[in-house]
Formats: sequence, C-alpha cells, structure tokens
Amino acid sequence: MGGSLALALRDVRAPAADHWTPQTIIGITRTRATLDAALARGAIDAASDSLDAARDADLIVLCAPVRTILEQIPQLGRLARDGALILDMGSTKREIVRAMNRLPERLTAVGGHPMCGKEVAGFDAAAAALYRGKIFALTKTERTTPDAFNAARRLAQTIGSRVVELDAARHDEIVAAVSHLPYVVAANLVNTVSAFAQADAQVWALAASGFRDTTRVAASDVTMMLDILLTNRENVADLMRRYARLFDQAADAVCGADEQTLRELLERAAHVRRA
Amino acid sequence: MGGSLALALRDVRAPAADHWTPQTIIGITRTRATLDAALARGAIDAASDSLDAARDADLIVLCAPVRTILEQIPQLGRLARDGALILDMGSTKREIVRAMNRLPERLTAVGGHPMCGKEVAGFDAAAAALYRGKIFALTKTERTTPDAFNAARRLAQTIGSRVVELDAARHDEIVAAVSHLPYVVAANLVNTVSAFAQADAQVWALAASGFRDTTRVAASDVTMMLDILLTNRENVADLMRRYARLFDQAADAVCGADEQTLRELLERAAHVRRA
Repeated sequence: MGGSLALALRDVRAPAADHWTPQTIIGITRTRATLDAALARGAIDAASDSLDAARDADLIVLCAPVRTILEQIPQLGRLARDGALILDMGSTKREIVRAMNRLPERLTAVGGHPMCGKEVAGFDAAAAALYRGKIFALTKTERTTPDAFNAARRLAQTIGSRVVELDAARHDEIVAAVSHLPYVVAANLVNTVSAFAQADAQVWALAASGFRDTTRVAASDVTMMLDILLTNRENVADLMRRYARLFDQAADAVCGADEQTLRELLERAAHVRRA
Repeated sequence: MGGSLALALRDVRAPAADHWTPQTIIGITRTRATLDAALARGAIDAASDSLDAARDADLIVLCAPVRTILEQIPQLGRLARDGALILDMGSTKREIVRAMNRLPERLTAVGGHPMCGKEVAGFDAAAAALYRGKIFALTKTERTTPDAFNAARRLAQTIGSRVVELDAARHDEIVAAVSHLPYVVAANLVNTVSAFAQADAQVWALAASGFRDTTRVAASDVTMMLDILLTNRENVADLMRRYARLFDQAADAVCGADEQTLRELLERAAHVRRA
C-alpha cells in the first residue's frame, strides 16, 4: 500500500491546482529489501528502518497492519513535529480513531481507508494505478481540523481515488459486511474443500473459474487480515452469526429437497448480485 | 452451452485427423429468438423447437438444465435413430447416467460435463472459445461402447477441451466441493450482506473487488443451479455441514479473540489457496 502510494504520487504528471504532491518522500519500513527496491524504482527519495525518520515530515501516512498502526500512533505523538498531519490506511477505523484522539493537540490526524486490497504484499506488487477509481474512505477524529481533512482529501484525489466521508463506527460496520465477512467465508471454503480433497490432486484439477474467484481473497496476507478481524470483532462476529443462520436454512432446504425455499433464496441472491 | 458448442465446431479451421466435425448442425430449443440468433450468426444449419428434429442425428448433445436432460433422455430413447450417440453437458452425472443406462441397446450414450460455466445464459453469451483449455469430464455408462467414448472424446478435443474420465459418483462428489458448495456459499453471502444493507446504497458503494469476486457465481442461472443442487443433494448437504462446522469454529475464534486458532486457520487457507 505504501509503495503504491509513493509510485502514484510520483506518477502525477501534470498536477491540478487542488492536487497534493510532496517535495520529498521518505520510505520507512523494517524490510531492507523493500527500501532498496523502492529507491531503485525512484518511488522514494530517502529510506529508513526507523519511525524517527518521520520526525520532520509534514504528512505521515501509516500503511502497516492495523495493530502496528495502533503502536505507531502514540510513538508519533512523541516524535512528530508541531502541526504535522498523520493519515493512516488501515482497514478498520474505530480503534485507530480512538488512538488518534489521544494524540497531543499540536498534531492533526485523519483516519483513511483506500478500498483496493490486493492478495499480494511487498514492493514488487506495488502499482501506481492501485488507487485509481477506487473509494478512499476518510474518517474525522478529534484531531481533524478543516485544513487537515482538506489535505487528506486532496491527497486521495491526487492518486485518483474517490473520497467518501464515513464515521468510524459506520465504516467498521460496512467493511465487516462487504470485506471481512467475504474473507472469512472464502477462507472457510478453501479449508472445507482442502479437508475434503486430502491428497487427491484431481479435485483441484477440476476446480474452475468459479472456485478460483470465490476463494481469491483467502490468499490475502494473514497478518493484515488477522489485525482487521481482531480490531472489528463485534461487527464481524455479528455478521458471521447472521450468515450461519441463512446458511443453515439453505442446508435444510437442500437436505429436504425444499425446492420452493431454495429457489426463493437463490433468486434473491442472483437478483441482488446482478444489480 | 449449446450455442458455444455450435460456434466452436464452426470455428475449427483446419481439422486435425482425430477431430470430430459435423456435416450439419441442427439447433433445438423452445426459444425462437435463440434459434434466430444462432441461424443469423451461422452457428447452426437448421433450427427446430422440437426434439423430433433430432430423429436422424448421428450425435445428439443435450445442453439443457439437468432435470430437463433427465426428461429428454427417455424421449430420445423412443425417437433417436439406431446407433445414434447421445452426449450430455449436464453439471451432475449420477442421475443422468442412471437415465442413460435405461436407454434401449440400439443407442449409445456418454455422460459429459465441460467445466466452464458462465453466469450469463442465452445465445448472446455464446462464444466459440468457451471450451478452449477447459476440462471436459466424460463418464461412461452401460450404453458406452469404445467407439462411442472415442467419438465423445474427439468432440471434446475438437473444441479445445482437455478430457478427464471420471465415474459418475466421484464426479458428483468432486463438483459438489469445487462448484456447488462455492455457489451456495456465495449466494448466502449476497443474501446476508443484502439483508444487512437494506436500502443503504453506501454499503454497495463500498463493496470492492473482493466482494465482487467472492460473489460472482451467485449471479448464475437459478434454474440451472437448482437442478444441479437437487440432483446432487447428499454430496452438497454433506459438504454444507462440513463447511458450517468450520465456520462455527472460526466464529468462536473471532468472538473469543482466539488469535492462535484464527491465525492457524487463516494461514492454512492462504497457503492452500496460493498453491
């Protein structure tokens, strides 16, 4: 996510008046190979493995898994310079906004979530076009001034995203439904078929595009997804319970050859999905 | 499926020695618009809305939903000419093979299942390339002679498919896992999110590629899928129960913030899916 952001900002050929383009981009990560690759591709001007390198930044964008971001926010509260803006790209917002609210008043902070995940992590997977045409959710915090929000909005627009403002609670409810539940559903599908297939390679040979698409997100980075699920537990658990109830009804209808119930639920799903 | 088959057979530019290419293709369906479109595109030489038109055919390929195929097989037992080969493209095989076994001995029959579904039905969605590179499962019946099997195999190869021979029981077990369970999982996911979203368009606006891919198959033709589920009930119900058990374990792990269990199951899914 961070690598793609750097590339996207580099890629702005003819900045519009309301674009936000940085003078200098400093890449910070503990993975030396990522820094080397980002430097080699010209994505960043400087590299560091320490958060200290963010000390003089005007804007600090946090692109780590959610629980790492939750550790970085108080550290930045101590080291960031007066008036700096902290923006994050974490996939859940309630806990992050809570941490941002505790930042000293000399800093500003906006919660962010670009809706454009990939199953592949690392700088090799970075692409300037990742954010183009995608939704970038922005969430206000107690440290969000009008100027800070405006800067975050301009950054999102500069990389081609469409900004949607959402409060943290509603954001986390919605992504539990459209992103976290699908991930859990897909992971369990892979595990079910995997346990069924055992060592029979023929099962996988017969898996066609339907299986591939339905399970694509199960290949997502586990540390990232684990942080997401564990910082959005109530919403995800609630939706998992709703899902399990509908699934049980469908299983009963299949078992009992209850054609009318089955047709009704499949028609509803097909209609909604097509729309 | 039938339209794509006709187009694929027309598309064979330089037939190889072991290709199977028809002299005349007769399209049969009750939908007049489909016949008109197929004639207009040159996919078929003649059109009919009655199975009687198959009376003089050497090869009869059944491309309807499974339960319609189950009605057509005994009808063809009465009207097909001596020595004709009946091949079907239905997505479950046990009940179809059982019906084929009851055909008179003057006919031959092979069960078939090209693994290349689409969510869009009708001749407008037909494409000569649909079968290219895809698996075409073939299942022997009591009416399968070596010549009949060979002809079915050559037909599948002519349209670019890779033939896999499977007995009916094993076929239905495998497709329950890699195709029918994913469909039920996706349909229930759409219904869960739909019930949650109610009339809030913002929920759908935030649904990104992960949700779209995970639910793509939920848009499949309901009549086709209903026939599949109802002719493969035991296998699908068994896998649905296995799935529900794993899903409940995952829900418990999310609720109880059981990080170790959750990481273990997500790692397993990610590992298998990437492989």
